[in-house]
Amino acid sequence: MRPKLNLVTLGVKDFERALKFYQEGLGWQPSSASQDEVAFFPLGGVVLGLYPCDKLAEDARVSPEGSGFARITLAYNTKSREEVDEVLQTVERLGATIVKQAENVFWGGYSGYFADPDGHLWEVAWNPFWGFDEADNLVLP
Amino acid sequence: MRPKLNLVTLGVKDFERALKFYQEGLGWQPSSASQDEVAFFPLGGVVLGLYPCDKLAEDARVSPEGSGFARITLAYNTKSREEVDEVLQTVERLGATIVKQAENVFWGGYSGYFADPDGHLWEVAWNPFWGFDEADNLVLP
Repeated sequence: MRPKLNLVTLGVKDFERALKFYQEGLGWQPSSASQDEVAFFPLGGVVLGLYPCDKLAEDARVSPEGSGFARITLAYNTKSREEVDEVLQTVERLGATIVKQAENVFWGGYSGYFADPDGHLWEVAWNPFWGFDEADNLVLP
Repeated sequence: MRPKLNLVTLGVKDFERALKFYQEGLGWQPSSASQDEVAFFPLGGVVLGLYPCDKLAEDARVSPEGSGFARITLAYNTKSREEVDEVLQTVERLGATIVKQAENVFWGGYSGYFADPDGHLWEVAWNPFWGFDEADNLVLP
């Protein structure tokens, strides 16, 4: 198994609402591989998928029942401290919930969290110790 | 907010067990940015993080309580149909649970699912309609 994560699929309760947030709101462009009830957003090295929650559970052959903390978070890394606040303001305007206002964090950066319309948690973080390569991917020490 | 997902963090109950699976078992190399209770695996375009579940919830300022389906799945795309079976055999040997044995699926590919030691769901899929670029990233139509 090579070191690779190709696709992250978010189960959604209301597919149109999720599309409205990610496609119309954030302006992310779905691949033409997207179909009536599935959307794929190529995000540079990884693809974000949207798929109805019950169908996602069915695909994995697990019960669709679940509640509370999902034990997975996504993160978007900004290129400046100011961009963290800008992104949180943008997503709040688009209907996301600010779960944690941005603050200075113990590891020396600045970060906050929002929940998308389905409750999926995104951290928005500025890490002054991490850079980006020419493909806009994180470069870790 | 540019179209980017930089980091996916898996909350884990037993950090050493998770390291044993991803680092020792799969042979994935953590970045030196990793510390005592956090590991970062650069996976080509996206970073996979491991972090204790309760600390992850605390970081996001949400309750750590949660159960059942997390409504997010990860996917690893193989380069052949045979590789799907090989990967599922490998992870089962390493302590993962096979949630769905690989089978032909309605969209024309072949896929199965496993749960890592913390229950995080990974699909292992071969999609004959999707290719890979020189950086090993998925190329969607």
